[in-house]
Amino acid sequence: MAETTIKALVFDVFGTVVDWRNSIAREAEATLSPKGVVLDWLVFADRWRGKYQPSMERVRSGHRGYVRLDVLHHENLLEVLDEFGVMGLAEADTDHLNKAWHRLDPWPDCVEGLTRLKTRYILGTMSNGNVALMVNMAKHAGLPWDVILGAEPAQAYKPQPDTYLTGVDWLGLEPGEVLMCAAHNDDLLAARDCGLKTAFIARPREYGPDQDWDFKAEHDFDHITESMIDLAEQMGC
Amino acid sequence: MAETTIKALVFDVFGTVVDWRNSIAREAEATLSPKGVVLDWLVFADRWRGKYQPSMERVRSGHRGYVRLDVLHHENLLEVLDEFGVMGLAEADTDHLNKAWHRLDPWPDCVEGLTRLKTRYILGTMSNGNVALMVNMAKHAGLPWDVILGAEPAQAYKPQPDTYLTGVDWLGLEPGEVLMCAAHNDDLLAARDCGLKTAFIARPREYGPDQDWDFKAEHDFDHITESMIDLAEQMGC
Repeated sequence: MAETTIKALVFDVFGTVVDWRNSIAREAEATLSPKGVVLDWLVFADRWRGKYQPSMERVRSGHRGYVRLDVLHHENLLEVLDEFGVMGLAEADTDHLNKAWHRLDPWPDCVEGLTRLKTRYILGTMSNGNVALMVNMAKHAGLPWDVILGAEPAQAYKPQPDTYLTGVDWLGLEPGEVLMCAAHNDDLLAARDCGLKTAFIARPREYGPDQDWDFKAEHDFDHITESMIDLAEQMGC
Repeated sequence: MAETTIKALVFDVFGTVVDWRNSIAREAEATLSPKGVVLDWLVFADRWRGKYQPSMERVRSGHRGYVRLDVLHHENLLEVLDEFGVMGLAEADTDHLNKAWHRLDPWPDCVEGLTRLKTRYILGTMSNGNVALMVNMAKHAGLPWDVILGAEPAQAYKPQPDTYLTGVDWLGLEPGEVLMCAAHNDDLLAARDCGLKTAFIARPREYGPDQDWDFKAEHDFDHITESMIDLAEQMGC
């Protein structure tokens, strides 16, 4: 693969760039523990995240028009709170907890790796998170994006082709000039089907110690890397 | 005005952040002079820019669907080349010259002023330029945007309200939490009509030494400033 043809790198964010699981557990504890709630915060994070794909699937399938992820997260939060028997929270508390997704922490290699990559490439998000979520997270975590792309600009959720292709189009590039970077095999396969180049970034603990999928690259992606710094080195940065 | 209510600053770009006139004149000379073309490069820049508002007006009025500014710039370039009697350019040359708008230089106070403002606020573009144009310009000029908003996300050209309001909506903010910053009175008036706060940044030489409009703030905007650094100081940065 000739690196010189790549002009932009676009990134999956949840799991690839930020550690949603430990961040959500911490934020849930910080919000709910003072209210006297006691539960397993990592299980709470997993259960909340478990509703993510099904809630987007209703939009992808056409049963519901596009709504931004903040809205789906909020609906899913009310469900998971109910399942855990947490009742009587003020609206300000659920709103604050919902915006925990705006305050996720990056994996420790990301700020350095992205900062190096930014010297030579355009860096964009290609996330199902909405624009405000991505912008606020970037301010919180110090992520040096050049542009926010993904679901909200396309009004479509990955892995729908429009999500990737709208981003490529807005960059004024050909799909083969854009490198999709993700820790998830299916995300990369969908991007590759749209003509994008692909880079796998291993995050074998995204889902905790018992993770047994997306443990490694299962396909012949253009780059297979262990971290954002490894990716920067492979891209000559 | 309580500064603490402002969460994001959004900027007009052509004229407010970058000096399009001298940049386009320089780029036109660099592209056309080696072809033996001799003309007044600043007049060429003025004539090209003179076609900007009329070409957008066809979109605003509904006579034409939204097309990105790169397309309008290209059509206008072919017209102005014809008017100056410049013929026989290769497509690669007109494409390169058209992308001069992606390579505009900032006014000298902008990188410092924006870098200071970025420490406390979300910074977005609110330009009629398309996303690729804004992203490439930011890489060229070192402009530290957090997010690219404006015409292409809204599929509408300023001063149409949708342009401002889509940006505000994508930021997840109320209009009154967003400060529109521009060197043009009409842009600020339109933003104010949408509920945004307003900051005038004086660029009395945007159109050259004979400029006799947008020379100063003609209305009671929330901030009236002489430069991006003055704005940073007024915003406590």
